[in-house]
Amino acid sequence: MGLIVQKYGGTSVGSTEKIKRVADRVIRTKEAGNAVVVVLSAMAGETNRLISLAQEIQRNPDPRELDALMATGEQVSIALFSMACKARGYEARSFLGFQVPIETDSSHTKARIENIDAKTLKDALNHGVIPVVAGFQGINASGDITTLGRGGSDTTAVALAVALGADICEIYTDVEGVFTTDPNICPKAKKIDRISYEEMLEMASLGAKVLEIRSVEFAMRYAMPLHVRSTFTDAPGTMVVKEDETMESILVSGVTYNKNEARITITKVPDRPGIAAKIFNPISDANIVVDMIIQNTREGELTDMTFTVPKPDYETALEIVRNVAKEIGAEKVLGDTEISKVSIIGVGMRNHAGVASRMFKILADHGINILMISTSEIKVSCVIQEKYTELAVRALHEGFGLEDR
Amino acid sequence: MGLIVQKYGGTSVGSTEKIKRVADRVIRTKEAGNAVVVVLSAMAGETNRLISLAQEIQRNPDPRELDALMATGEQVSIALFSMACKARGYEARSFLGFQVPIETDSSHTKARIENIDAKTLKDALNHGVIPVVAGFQGINASGDITTLGRGGSDTTAVALAVALGADICEIYTDVEGVFTTDPNICPKAKKIDRISYEEMLEMASLGAKVLEIRSVEFAMRYAMPLHVRSTFTDAPGTMVVKEDETMESILVSGVTYNKNEARITITKVPDRPGIAAKIFNPISDANIVVDMIIQNTREGELTDMTFTVPKPDYETALEIVRNVAKEIGAEKVLGDTEISKVSIIGVGMRNHAGVASRMFKILADHGINILMISTSEIKVSCVIQEKYTELAVRALHEGFGLEDR
Repeated sequence: MGLIVQKYGGTSVGSTEKIKRVADRVIRTKEAGNAVVVVLSAMAGETNRLISLAQEIQRNPDPRELDALMATGEQVSIALFSMACKARGYEARSFLGFQVPIETDSSHTKARIENIDAKTLKDALNHGVIPVVAGFQGINASGDITTLGRGGSDTTAVALAVALGADICEIYTDVEGVFTTDPNICPKAKKIDRISYEEMLEMASLGAKVLEIRSVEFAMRYAMPLHVRSTFTDAPGTMVVKEDETMESILVSGVTYNKNEARITITKVPDRPGIAAKIFNPISDANIVVDMIIQNTREGELTDMTFTVPKPDYETALEIVRNVAKEIGAEKVLGDTEISKVSIIGVGMRNHAGVASRMFKILADHGINILMISTSEIKVSCVIQEKYTELAVRALHEGFGLEDR
Repeated sequence: MGLIVQKYGGTSVGSTEKIKRVADRVIRTKEAGNAVVVVLSAMAGETNRLISLAQEIQRNPDPRELDALMATGEQVSIALFSMACKARGYEARSFLGFQVPIETDSSHTKARIENIDAKTLKDALNHGVIPVVAGFQGINASGDITTLGRGGSDTTAVALAVALGADICEIYTDVEGVFTTDPNICPKAKKIDRISYEEMLEMASLGAKVLEIRSVEFAMRYAMPLHVRSTFTDAPGTMVVKEDETMESILVSGVTYNKNEARITITKVPDRPGIAAKIFNPISDANIVVDMIIQNTREGELTDMTFTVPKPDYETALEIVRNVAKEIGAEKVLGDTEISKVSIIGVGMRNHAGVASRMFKILADHGINILMISTSEIKVSCVIQEKYTELAVRALHEGFGLEDR
């Protein structure tokens, strides 16, 4: 009995058979008395197929043309899906980014939504039509097709839900919801029933793949409730909502890991003002995002500087840092790609001391050495040797009692 | 040294390798000092793949959604093609139907172009950019994507050439031009160097597949010269132009055949006013296009009525005609699907008597019986038994001296 935006991912619409099943699900929601707006991703595999075609032509495909190419994936899904609804006797209508319109800035391949005019979709709803909107794409002020980057369909769905004043935004995927940790490496992982936006953001940033970060930020800013759930069951999934008191009683909500970073250390860096800028400016100029940074004072006026970068950027970063090290008179540059970052997340940490030290003890009890530490109000991250990742995740999951949630 | 619109068909852009070769060709044209606008079809096979997907979902796919689906084929080609130009250091820019814009009526799957605003493309040309336009698609007044029907990219190219005031419209395909007849059944078929719009129209209508009929009509109306040529050689192809005196010296320009019709005969039809309407109105109401109609007075006030319909419509037409025959008191309904239509075409016929009787004699000399005859100012068509098709085509080709052209 409300207005619901339902977003289905690529695996949910990965074949014509699956598209028909999703149409049945949407129609059930409508028949239950709701108004439904559907947002779809490209059929699973299509995005990669298109990228391969582009790369056969141009190693670094032109961004404007890549967007025009990639946008066809969602265009195919929404047209087929609308046909599936019509075949069942329901009025549906596909809407491309330019037809809604979903206005974005001009940053091709990673555009940001600037404005959505919901009038056309509202008109369709008022006529009993199911609007089926292409995720991931928009149009810029010059009339060029833009895309929002991988996972952008989640953002489309949340932004539409906000623009329409929907009651809820449902994100359908191939898992049952957000889990306390990755069930593939920790069979005791539990589905989380409710989680705050802040925790979800940290989990998404720290390695959980179920939701795209920007969509959570968007939902948080406008307090749009998200329901992450499975396309293939009717069981409720995970509600992502505003923090409430009950959440604070839980110390740790989830454990994440990320094997996609590498570590670089510069030893015996002269400790004088402006030295950090000397090191990190050229890295940022190369568009490399540095994650954790720690600095240990060593002896007198020398210091060691350690930081992490995404693994694909490791070689480039190493070369840059070697040049800088020479220039500033540091001793040497060390690198390590065999690391991973394990994190615990929970709003309960705000009011409970000792969570971090409990984490360190659990890791120590399992013989796991901590290489770097980084904390925020609601998370603690430790960099460890990569080979201990699974052991660490299971130990933390058990140590913080997540399997009993 | 002019403004050229080049259209490349699906086989010409059927793979990323072929797209690169076509880009080389376009760039050569530009380097020779011309301004070039490119129009592309979908990559070969893509249109059929999309239709299959649609039919897996809905037996008769919704026309609006089918258009949104089909339009992705050309979107993929133009994006990839623009990348190929950019990879070679040339500025290119893809344009979808809505971006040009190419405005059409709202007849989904068979829309007609109503207006083209050439300003955006001219701006691109003035900036040295190669505009790469999606063939086959347009946009209607409601902002819905429309398509022009099979072969519609030819029409897009000619319409753009007219709107831009181009000097010529080149249609690139996988054959070397327009032939005096189908080289597959008549190895002595010759490429035609120059042909008039009228002859080309008749040839396209009567079975030659190289150009889409509407594109020829369009070119004729605006006197836009067409050059039909091969993507894979530099040899000149066939110029389709305004009729001139030299053309009239040639009696017959081409021989065509069409095996895609079936014949229906109603015997002993009472010969009274309004009887033809009684027979043909219900057929036309069923959207079936009748081609040839002949009527033989039989005895007294009875007549035989024979006509042809496309083979796919044969069963439906037969059922309609059986009902009508009962109603009007005709004797019986006969049908025959084993027929074909062979035609000779030439503007020279206008000024030369005896071309038709020469055709009848050639067929008779080869023992081929004529079942139906239909003539116009510049063509003669004979329906014969299907099994004689190849024999008839070769005999007419030789009999009218086409191999010596």
